[in-house]
Amino acid sequence: MRILFIGFGNVAKETARILTEKELYPKLDLVPTVIGVFTQRHGGVENTNGLDLRSVLRSLKEKNTLVCEDEQLSSLTPLEAAQILDYDVLVELSALSISEHGEPASSYIHAALERGKSVVSANKGPVAFNYHKLKKLADEKGVKYLFESAVMDGAPVFNLVRRCMKGSTIKGFSGILNGTTNYILSYMENGGTFEEGVKQAQLAGIAEADPTMDTDGWDPAAKTAAFANVLMDADINPFDVERKGISQITPEMCKDALKRGKRLKLICRAQTIDGKIKASVKVEEVDKDDVMALISHFGAAIRIESDLMHPNTIIQDRPDLLDTAYGVIEDLISISDKSVC
Amino acid sequence: MRILFIGFGNVAKETARILTEKELYPKLDLVPTVIGVFTQRHGGVENTNGLDLRSVLRSLKEKNTLVCEDEQLSSLTPLEAAQILDYDVLVELSALSISEHGEPASSYIHAALERGKSVVSANKGPVAFNYHKLKKLADEKGVKYLFESAVMDGAPVFNLVRRCMKGSTIKGFSGILNGTTNYILSYMENGGTFEEGVKQAQLAGIAEADPTMDTDGWDPAAKTAAFANVLMDADINPFDVERKGISQITPEMCKDALKRGKRLKLICRAQTIDGKIKASVKVEEVDKDDVMALISHFGAAIRIESDLMHPNTIIQDRPDLLDTAYGVIEDLISISDKSVC
Repeated sequence: MRILFIGFGNVAKETARILTEKELYPKLDLVPTVIGVFTQRHGGVENTNGLDLRSVLRSLKEKNTLVCEDEQLSSLTPLEAAQILDYDVLVELSALSISEHGEPASSYIHAALERGKSVVSANKGPVAFNYHKLKKLADEKGVKYLFESAVMDGAPVFNLVRRCMKGSTIKGFSGILNGTTNYILSYMENGGTFEEGVKQAQLAGIAEADPTMDTDGWDPAAKTAAFANVLMDADINPFDVERKGISQITPEMCKDALKRGKRLKLICRAQTIDGKIKASVKVEEVDKDDVMALISHFGAAIRIESDLMHPNTIIQDRPDLLDTAYGVIEDLISISDKSVC
Repeated sequence: MRILFIGFGNVAKETARILTEKELYPKLDLVPTVIGVFTQRHGGVENTNGLDLRSVLRSLKEKNTLVCEDEQLSSLTPLEAAQILDYDVLVELSALSISEHGEPASSYIHAALERGKSVVSANKGPVAFNYHKLKKLADEKGVKYLFESAVMDGAPVFNLVRRCMKGSTIKGFSGILNGTTNYILSYMENGGTFEEGVKQAQLAGIAEADPTMDTDGWDPAAKTAAFANVLMDADINPFDVERKGISQITPEMCKDALKRGKRLKLICRAQTIDGKIKASVKVEEVDKDDVMALISHFGAAIRIESDLMHPNTIIQDRPDLLDTAYGVIEDLISISDKSVC
């Protein structure tokens, strides 16, 4: 399997680390050849015979450049690399951009699918903005477009519904899908301020320098749209999601709820009402004996409702880069293994 | 797809109901022909052109017999039916028997696999006692042996690990897998006695007339062995599971734990220790902010630990026959759909 990476931030580096330390993981049976690594900021390197991933990782770490022993910077842009190079699977791990409606990631993915190449992406943007178009193209070309890590860092949700709940109709879901806001709400319950909570989340490496994507609810809205589009066959984007962030929530409100045996949680929700899918992201009071109340810090959870089962909830304990990278690897395994849809 | 049912109790009837009311479930795309229904107590009926499932269900309900309009009792035993009749898939739904080490279910399943027929079973016995032998036979014959409903009533666990976590090694799991004991423990926390709790669970139709399979921990031990065999490649049976039931637990012990912010739960557990798999079923004190503490009544949960992800927990809210039957149907879909492993 010949792989092209576009985007080589923390998730990609962790993915590469796992692939170069395969001996640590007895069941991991995947020997890909990485023929290119392209980034927006550091340029790209390519080698049709396969890059030495260890050298690339070392060079990035020690010299902050992709240029390493035998490799010089490529003259191609990431999009050109997707359009021109000889690979089997594009691993698309560029940054999410809500304001750009999933671009440039969607264009990279489109370019690969158009050429009949499968795509693995950890990017929620294209799933939130362009899912049906990209999926249709993948189906037409007979290739796969997989994105398990786009929401809930690789916890099996998209793949679970696709492979293990084929006969049921998903009627709705609810969940906690954004670690930063969940952390800040917990922090305020314990007496801290909103600003301090943001700062602590930044120190933990979870919140961005500009935290408003999280605190204004854009990130969870994108995740809600992604889940709704894939699990419920909705055709919405993050702008269609009724969205209220947590910036109006005060420590007093959190503590007051706690006194009444409740917790304030930013709940992502989608439901089919009169044949239409309604999606929302807003702070809800959650009862203390609802499992959602126990999702603290950077955990995540989704409760799935369907016509042929009582609700099933998947909870992820304190996921980090390992989980996101594993989601990418699991999708790669699904592409290499023809017995998995 | 030509189906032979062996065992036609509540799960089978609910499965048959769903199949005869397909119009209620928009995504359910399965049109099987049921060529035989065999039971231990009611005999069997067969029709190579397909039985009228509605008639069979009606006849059982109204006259407590399988004999209906066009069908007379077959002279075959269930085992002979598995050995002789012309079908594609055996749906094995006979009762669990720990004392008989998974028999006669294992023999039915073996007979079908031996003939190159796929098997769907909701029976934990064969998975707990004979998994590797049956799986090896299925692989040799190029057919499937699926049993999603054997534990946790159809919640996707076996299929999830098989299809969505192919690259990771499961290091261990813990969970609440027996509704009756979980109900009785909750009942005692609220001041009831053990005996009343048993009675209430029987009235709710969950506990058997002889509740000791549950209260002595045999049912959860069988489920633990089944999960360990399949998810962790263990080779154990229920007798290898360290097992303590709940009969020694008093209401006072439950209330005392509650006072200290804990709950008593019957926890099923398996772990790899020094390369060996250790499995246990026993009452443990669970912290109030552990999701296991929130599994009340007849719910179930499993927390899965692997080498490439932080723990993921799957929680099932108040499952009933619908869930178990859906697990059977989902396995049938997997057999009819060649793209699912």
